[in-house]
Amino acid sequence: MLDIRPVLLVIGALLSVLGVAMFIPALIDLALGDAQWRVFAASGAVTLFVGGGLWLATRKGRVEFTRRQAFMMTVLTWASLSAFGALPFLWSGVVPTYTDAFFESMSGITTTGSTVMSGLDGMQAGILLWRGILQWLGGLGVIVMAIAVLPMLQVGGMQLFQAESFSTAEKILPRATQISAGLTALYILFTVICGSLYYSAGMTALDATVHGMTTVATGGLSSHDASIGHYGSARIELIAIVFMILGSLPFILYIQAMRGQWKRLFIDSEIRTFFMLLALFISIATFYAIETNTFTGIEALRHSAFNVVSVMTGTGYASTDYQLWGPFTIAFFFFIMFIGGCQGSTACGLKVFRLQVMFQVLKQHINRIVFPNGVFVKRYSGYPLADNVSAAVMSYFFLYVVSFLVLAILLQMTGLDFVTSLSGAGTAIANVGPGVGHIIGPSGNFQPLNDVAKWLLAFGMLLGRLELLTVLVLFLPSFWRE
Amino acid sequence: MLDIRPVLLVIGALLSVLGVAMFIPALIDLALGDAQWRVFAASGAVTLFVGGGLWLATRKGRVEFTRRQAFMMTVLTWASLSAFGALPFLWSGVVPTYTDAFFESMSGITTTGSTVMSGLDGMQAGILLWRGILQWLGGLGVIVMAIAVLPMLQVGGMQLFQAESFSTAEKILPRATQISAGLTALYILFTVICGSLYYSAGMTALDATVHGMTTVATGGLSSHDASIGHYGSARIELIAIVFMILGSLPFILYIQAMRGQWKRLFIDSEIRTFFMLLALFISIATFYAIETNTFTGIEALRHSAFNVVSVMTGTGYASTDYQLWGPFTIAFFFFIMFIGGCQGSTACGLKVFRLQVMFQVLKQHINRIVFPNGVFVKRYSGYPLADNVSAAVMSYFFLYVVSFLVLAILLQMTGLDFVTSLSGAGTAIANVGPGVGHIIGPSGNFQPLNDVAKWLLAFGMLLGRLELLTVLVLFLPSFWRE
Ligand SMILES: [K+]
Ligand SMILES: [K+]
Repeated sequence: MLDIRPVLLVIGALLSVLGVAMFIPALIDLALGDAQWRVFAASGAVTLFVGGGLWLATRKGRVEFTRRQAFMMTVLTWASLSAFGALPFLWSGVVPTYTDAFFESMSGITTTGSTVMSGLDGMQAGILLWRGILQWLGGLGVIVMAIAVLPMLQVGGMQLFQAESFSTAEKILPRATQISAGLTALYILFTVICGSLYYSAGMTALDATVHGMTTVATGGLSSHDASIGHYGSARIELIAIVFMILGSLPFILYIQAMRGQWKRLFIDSEIRTFFMLLALFISIATFYAIETNTFTGIEALRHSAFNVVSVMTGTGYASTDYQLWGPFTIAFFFFIMFIGGCQGSTACGLKVFRLQVMFQVLKQHINRIVFPNGVFVKRYSGYPLADNVSAAVMSYFFLYVVSFLVLAILLQMTGLDFVTSLSGAGTAIANVGPGVGHIIGPSGNFQPLNDVAKWLLAFGMLLGRLELLTVLVLFLPSFWRE
Repeated sequence: MLDIRPVLLVIGALLSVLGVAMFIPALIDLALGDAQWRVFAASGAVTLFVGGGLWLATRKGRVEFTRRQAFMMTVLTWASLSAFGALPFLWSGVVPTYTDAFFESMSGITTTGSTVMSGLDGMQAGILLWRGILQWLGGLGVIVMAIAVLPMLQVGGMQLFQAESFSTAEKILPRATQISAGLTALYILFTVICGSLYYSAGMTALDATVHGMTTVATGGLSSHDASIGHYGSARIELIAIVFMILGSLPFILYIQAMRGQWKRLFIDSEIRTFFMLLALFISIATFYAIETNTFTGIEALRHSAFNVVSVMTGTGYASTDYQLWGPFTIAFFFFIMFIGGCQGSTACGLKVFRLQVMFQVLKQHINRIVFPNGVFVKRYSGYPLADNVSAAVMSYFFLYVVSFLVLAILLQMTGLDFVTSLSGAGTAIANVGPGVGHIIGPSGNFQPLNDVAKWLLAFGMLLGRLELLTVLVLFLPSFWRE
């Protein structure tokens, strides 16, 4: 029998944190004299009651996880947090159904940023803040999970980063609990700096707080329907670019940088590739924006840089509707959104290191074709790449494509059109936010979709955020066999 | 210095064959009293002159191929045959430009079946026949190439089939020249039987000939604008289903079956998987056609079976416009078209064995995640699967996806809409034929596209037909280094 006590213990503890977090918007609404503070207080009380109860009932005994418990814990934690995080949306009446509330909550906590809400500009402060807090907590959860849980589960080649010995040849594996504190402090620091810069650039305190949280989390939820485009400010866009990028780099390297290993930030192979890809895509977008007379000169660079960074990192802020830039940009932005950022960051998507590994495997294959008698070693970051790691990465890619296709077909079965199905599936699994087309494109939202589609998309977000396999193994009979 | 004499010798010989083939439509048009026989006679004369000249100039000396020569020979042969196969289309005036003629010719010889022509129902017999002959020759070329050339080049995991010892444990490697004759005889036999059945089911002699050739080649060009839907005959559709499937199975197994090894046709792992996939997809399509009240009962099964077989094998005949079946079918058919048939058949696409290999790698990865202490061997057809083969297959898949994405982006840059770009790229690389949407969908054609798009698509067809890498290595500097 599987012992679910430790699983429930973690869920209880994290639900309690979520419950406490709900009192922040409650206090803000109360301070602003908005009666809606009661919704947050009630949601917080319920969540805290359930979470605290679970925690109290299970806290006795040792806390150790078998692999099966770790998988269950990861998936059930994210699902429960979404379920309870939805309460304020439902009880405040800003969305009509629990489906919508759950969608918004899942979109928040997975840092996806797809929304079923509109009319944000006149919305109560508490709700806007809550969306920001959900994404912020989700982003923090992802960083901790990527360092503490995923390498142990060896999902999709993440064992590459298991001991850090791979790229440093040092035997320092900082324990999850030790580094979690450092990561959290750093994450708070980034958020505070980003929010302060936004404030100094002209945002209101509320907007600066919400955008600070959703930028560092590469989440992309905004407190305005027009997203960052609301401000039309190059300075704000520049701040966003810098912090979206900072959110997409491996957080563990910041910790090491603070310990004096600055150089690693500049020699890390994944970071270099990430910047090379950004530079390439920004150049292409700028060139075409000028070529098609959409923008001129520095304006073309500004909008290209912002939108490429926003889409590739999976943040999903919009400054202008890139669908209006001319015909080429739609497929271009649709495809770069699958890439995402670096491992161990708040960004989602395929991750840059997987692209690098696949490119290495392809290079080896091509070399073997051209020089059948040669011996070719594939390398990552200078070190030989084990076959089981590259096989894991390639399998992950295969599963990523298949999951996308199956989700797109299921979405179309619910009655959505081809473009909405395709881009909806992509934006959910890559945790980007907006899709393509007139319904869920950068200037639309997910409200008009049917309920089944919303549940499917919410599942797709969870799937993408937890690196697919973490969720999918739970559906395998062999996983449950004694 | 690379000696291109043997390369030119093969090109010369095959151009001569193509030139001779042009006299067949010439004779038919002459017999029918159509003045257009002169176009074919002139095209044939020019092609034969160039081909024969090349052959005469290079026939002295030994014919041996280094790997580099083999790659060059393969790519240049297909390109030259397309270039000369285009002459009758241009000179007869059925298409306005050489771009269109080359597109039609490349689409024919790669067995893709995308067309820039309409008004087929009133077209001269010679032209219709020529499109059939191009596809038929292309289909034969692919089978011979898959057995004689590709395993030697080890492209995309084809070394799995290099010695046949893999799946038989026998040491019989039939030499290319020996088996080519057997394959050709069998291919002719299939075509004759298929054409005769079509004729007995009510097609005219011309239609039966053209469709016989394009069915066995899984090519899909028709002598009617409405494709097979023109006849509205369940009997004709059934014949088409049987021979599209026969064209999608490994031809080498037919040869072995004729030598008494019947059983292998039924135990071959790729064939079984191919049929399982067909059964699965036909069931899904039938279920939804009934569920959405598009068709009832046996009619639902009929149209589902025909269209699933036609799209998955990459034949591309249309019986009805499946885009009108309801919302779900577009993404569904769009995705199954990437699969294709078995290796060593006339079908293109990813190929079933690659899906099997990737599934095995994924299974191994999942097993390793769930049971980190277990030892898991991946197998194909009962035999252990070497890491270099699975890496080759996974690389191929990665490259397949990347090629599709890049082609789609380039197509959109030329000004095509999102759906046309996406489905055009897919249908070209998978050699299917029709795309999705109101321009290039099952009831449209490729005429309205711009010239750059047509050249890009023609290149995509060649890329897909020659298993990507055969073409792409030629662009590598390392390939040309001494
Ligand atoms: K996002
Ligand atoms: K075809």
